[in-house]
Amino acid sequence: MDKFIVLLLVGYVTANTQPGLRQNRLGTEVPSLGDTSPGSVWPQPQSQTSTSQTYPVLAEKFAFTYTSSSFRCSLLDEAFKRYQMLIMNAAARSKLHFRPRAPYTITTLDINLMAKCEDYPSLDMNEAYSLDVGESSTQLQAESVWGILRGLETFSQLLWQTETGEILANKTNIIDHPRYSHRGILLDTSRHYLPLSVIFDNLEAMAYNKINVFHWHIVDDQSFPYVSEIYPDLSRKGAYTSLSHIYTPDDVAAVIEFARLRGIRVVPEFDTPGHSQSWGKGQPGLLTPCYSGDKPTGSYGPINPIVDSTYTFIQTLFTELRNVFPDKYIHLGGDEVSFACWQSNPDINNYMKNLNITGKYNELEQIYVQKVLNISGLIGFSYIVWQEVVDNQVQLKDDTVVEVWINNHPDEELAKVTKLGYRALLAAPWYLDYISTGEDWMKYYLEEPSNFNGTDAQKKLLIGGEACLWGEYVDGSNVTPRLWPRASAVAERLWSSKDVNDVTKATPRLHQHRCRMVKRGISAQPLHPGYCVHDWGNI
Amino acid sequence: MDKFIVLLLVGYVTANTQPGLRQNRLGTEVPSLGDTSPGSVWPQPQSQTSTSQTYPVLAEKFAFTYTSSSFRCSLLDEAFKRYQMLIMNAAARSKLHFRPRAPYTITTLDINLMAKCEDYPSLDMNEAYSLDVGESSTQLQAESVWGILRGLETFSQLLWQTETGEILANKTNIIDHPRYSHRGILLDTSRHYLPLSVIFDNLEAMAYNKINVFHWHIVDDQSFPYVSEIYPDLSRKGAYTSLSHIYTPDDVAAVIEFARLRGIRVVPEFDTPGHSQSWGKGQPGLLTPCYSGDKPTGSYGPINPIVDSTYTFIQTLFTELRNVFPDKYIHLGGDEVSFACWQSNPDINNYMKNLNITGKYNELEQIYVQKVLNISGLIGFSYIVWQEVVDNQVQLKDDTVVEVWINNHPDEELAKVTKLGYRALLAAPWYLDYISTGEDWMKYYLEEPSNFNGTDAQKKLLIGGEACLWGEYVDGSNVTPRLWPRASAVAERLWSSKDVNDVTKATPRLHQHRCRMVKRGISAQPLHPGYCVHDWGNI
Repeated sequence: MDKFIVLLLVGYVTANTQPGLRQNRLGTEVPSLGDTSPGSVWPQPQSQTSTSQTYPVLAEKFAFTYTSSSFRCSLLDEAFKRYQMLIMNAAARSKLHFRPRAPYTITTLDINLMAKCEDYPSLDMNEAYSLDVGESSTQLQAESVWGILRGLETFSQLLWQTETGEILANKTNIIDHPRYSHRGILLDTSRHYLPLSVIFDNLEAMAYNKINVFHWHIVDDQSFPYVSEIYPDLSRKGAYTSLSHIYTPDDVAAVIEFARLRGIRVVPEFDTPGHSQSWGKGQPGLLTPCYSGDKPTGSYGPINPIVDSTYTFIQTLFTELRNVFPDKYIHLGGDEVSFACWQSNPDINNYMKNLNITGKYNELEQIYVQKVLNISGLIGFSYIVWQEVVDNQVQLKDDTVVEVWINNHPDEELAKVTKLGYRALLAAPWYLDYISTGEDWMKYYLEEPSNFNGTDAQKKLLIGGEACLWGEYVDGSNVTPRLWPRASAVAERLWSSKDVNDVTKATPRLHQHRCRMVKRGISAQPLHPGYCVHDWGNI
Repeated sequence: MDKFIVLLLVGYVTANTQPGLRQNRLGTEVPSLGDTSPGSVWPQPQSQTSTSQTYPVLAEKFAFTYTSSSFRCSLLDEAFKRYQMLIMNAAARSKLHFRPRAPYTITTLDINLMAKCEDYPSLDMNEAYSLDVGESSTQLQAESVWGILRGLETFSQLLWQTETGEILANKTNIIDHPRYSHRGILLDTSRHYLPLSVIFDNLEAMAYNKINVFHWHIVDDQSFPYVSEIYPDLSRKGAYTSLSHIYTPDDVAAVIEFARLRGIRVVPEFDTPGHSQSWGKGQPGLLTPCYSGDKPTGSYGPINPIVDSTYTFIQTLFTELRNVFPDKYIHLGGDEVSFACWQSNPDINNYMKNLNITGKYNELEQIYVQKVLNISGLIGFSYIVWQEVVDNQVQLKDDTVVEVWINNHPDEELAKVTKLGYRALLAAPWYLDYISTGEDWMKYYLEEPSNFNGTDAQKKLLIGGEACLWGEYVDGSNVTPRLWPRASAVAERLWSSKDVNDVTKATPRLHQHRCRMVKRGISAQPLHPGYCVHDWGNI
């Protein structure tokens, strides 16, 4: 798409206010807690050189343009529209016809996409980019569309607004890429249902933080909101309500598309054999009947691993999932399997006796998980599993990713997982459902994922981490302020250089970033006493 | 106002959905965590008798009517409009023209106000009421308008909706009054500014919980958003921003009126001599200059107690406040005075030497507080103070209320304060700015205020308590879900009988109450895994 068309699409042009800049309205800048130079970028780029030289952005003429040698891409065209709106949304209040005298006025961001457009982000995607706000042009260059997306976010964060309404960018050169390739947020839509609008808000916030994976813990014991076309009773009977607490195929497709346009992978988790009480409501015979003596109690335990119907069901459901979710990976769970019900069930015990594994319930679990993994692999899924699956010595595909969540020496678990040659994700220190008074983001920020014993090769097998906001105590009423900006601390840890780890320096930048999110419509909560020029509800 | 006019005012009539009733949409009731009988009331009335006999409410004809002997009151007419909207707001989705066969159909709530209307609520207001949903009529009776207001809230909570859309009330007799007369919520608009819309939302929620005092901690060190007409520089220089982070006289009047209509007192706090850094910005000479050796450092400490100008200023400002805030009481603070700056200041030390109180800074504090209290009393304020004022042996007016906040044996402090003959408020166990993972409302719920050593006369001097949500970590983005339903636990403790203290019984009622708040537009957060029929963002 060329410049002319971009301008037509955008329609109107507005201006940005720098939300982190503390100033009162009488014209005096009031430096106070949280001040930092305006236009700071979160997460911090790998390399950034800026000077005090500023260039005005000519709001009413500004456009994104492809360079002549650039590939073009509909995904980017969509991004241009979003960022045009986002960057410029304060100009209605500013002096639109301001004509500054300046050595160079920014009227375009020249985009150079060096390789063909890609459709869907992946673990191996290239997010590197370079951005130059120079003396005569402003350029964003990347090998891949994903790098351009990250660079657009950075560019939008560089802009700031003076008190007189002028939009400025400092002379800046940035060369940037992520430290880790998997930077995820887990949201749980089973303990509480999250409305689509809330999921969209959080996907926007993920993009503002260069998070690239939405780990969608979509079902669990409490409810099964995923609407399966093959097994509609799963949600009809297993969702909290079957009309309003569900994700229809259209809903799921909308989430995936919303995320894709922002370079965010959607990795669904269908956790078995535990965490599956809600599955049993719509799929009789799937769960293990629990016994008291020789009589069924009417309660059910984990998925029943000894009947063929279980595996037929899994194969059929997961084949549907393969068509619904485009990501190469699925998260298969495998955590926290309680053996009490299996122990009570005579059929289970007979089965185990025949296999000569009497009393070894973890071996039974292993048999189940192995079969599910094999089915998933045959269908075409790569998989992520919680650490118990490795701890139980299940045989895994080479490209398996193991997620370390138990916060008892996760460093030792990382060493173990990577020594076995598997790729690892760190989640243990970043369970954001645990809350406490004060600035707990600092604790998350100071976690250094690579501090485990291992060779360089092992260190390379650590591919990233996830901030997990389990859903017991959050729903649409509070999930967004509880997640942001606490998850931003994790986002910078996973994107920026290892040596970007000074909370004193990070504090004013994070405050500025939080204010930027608020201004963009994300109800991120405050870090500490203070204010944003545009506070939530007071914009 | 008679029935005919009420109907005209209302204009249209809708119906209620019982939000706490767990049911899926296929017609099967699904009992699950949090179930309780529909139409439960929070806080629990002193006496309630209900039967399984239900009466339908005829939505399209329903009206509030005064009995022939009742006094009438414009404040109640306003309340009728609110409750008509609130009670009925789901009927658009239900069968409006449903005509049930029933022994009695509720078409009116007959109001009998037995004494003349009052304009403004007070510490001594009478909130008792009786409510009867009987075989042939539905009646609400109270001595005072405040009792009628509380009864209207109760009536609105009694109604519930069946799956087919029918609105029902069970045959019920309630005789109710509060256990304590001061049931407050502290919100802090200095650490963070709270937009008016957020304050209004929380005043609504207070009314839904029969909270009757908004303790408005309006200014503090961090900012001075109160716009004084006599001293406009206080907010012009002391607010975060002087245009958008302020409360104008119109704003303050709107808050007071919004609260008054709901029977909620607004008690402003102007905390001195500490917690006053922001005061100094617009009132040079008010704060104590701190010294290093014999030179001023440029920093300032508490209000300067040794200059006459301080007391002239206080008298002038507080005279304005007396005209702005109609409540008999003002909160004068008096907590957490740091002596370091006074200790450094040679003028202060000379002054103390002349008074023969060298080194006794608490006596200096006492002198200051005594003068401010005397001024306040002469102007016509009664006052509430934090406990330090008593601990420092300041002489207080007989009607002083002492607020106990230090959570180190608050029972001993209550014993001490009441033994001195002062009225006491308990806040110590209810600092809701302290957060932790899980259902901390239970801890607040189980606090029994009267568990201190003292005579019956002393026990009677405990007039209530307050849930305090200090503002360091909350603003418009998160204050409402953080406050509710946690503060509801305190609301029931302060309203209901002492023996209503079983968290197991309270849990499903509180879940139902939380869902009711969500349905009414309050973003109260969830208690535990589960759902509301109408979840936040999914209504």
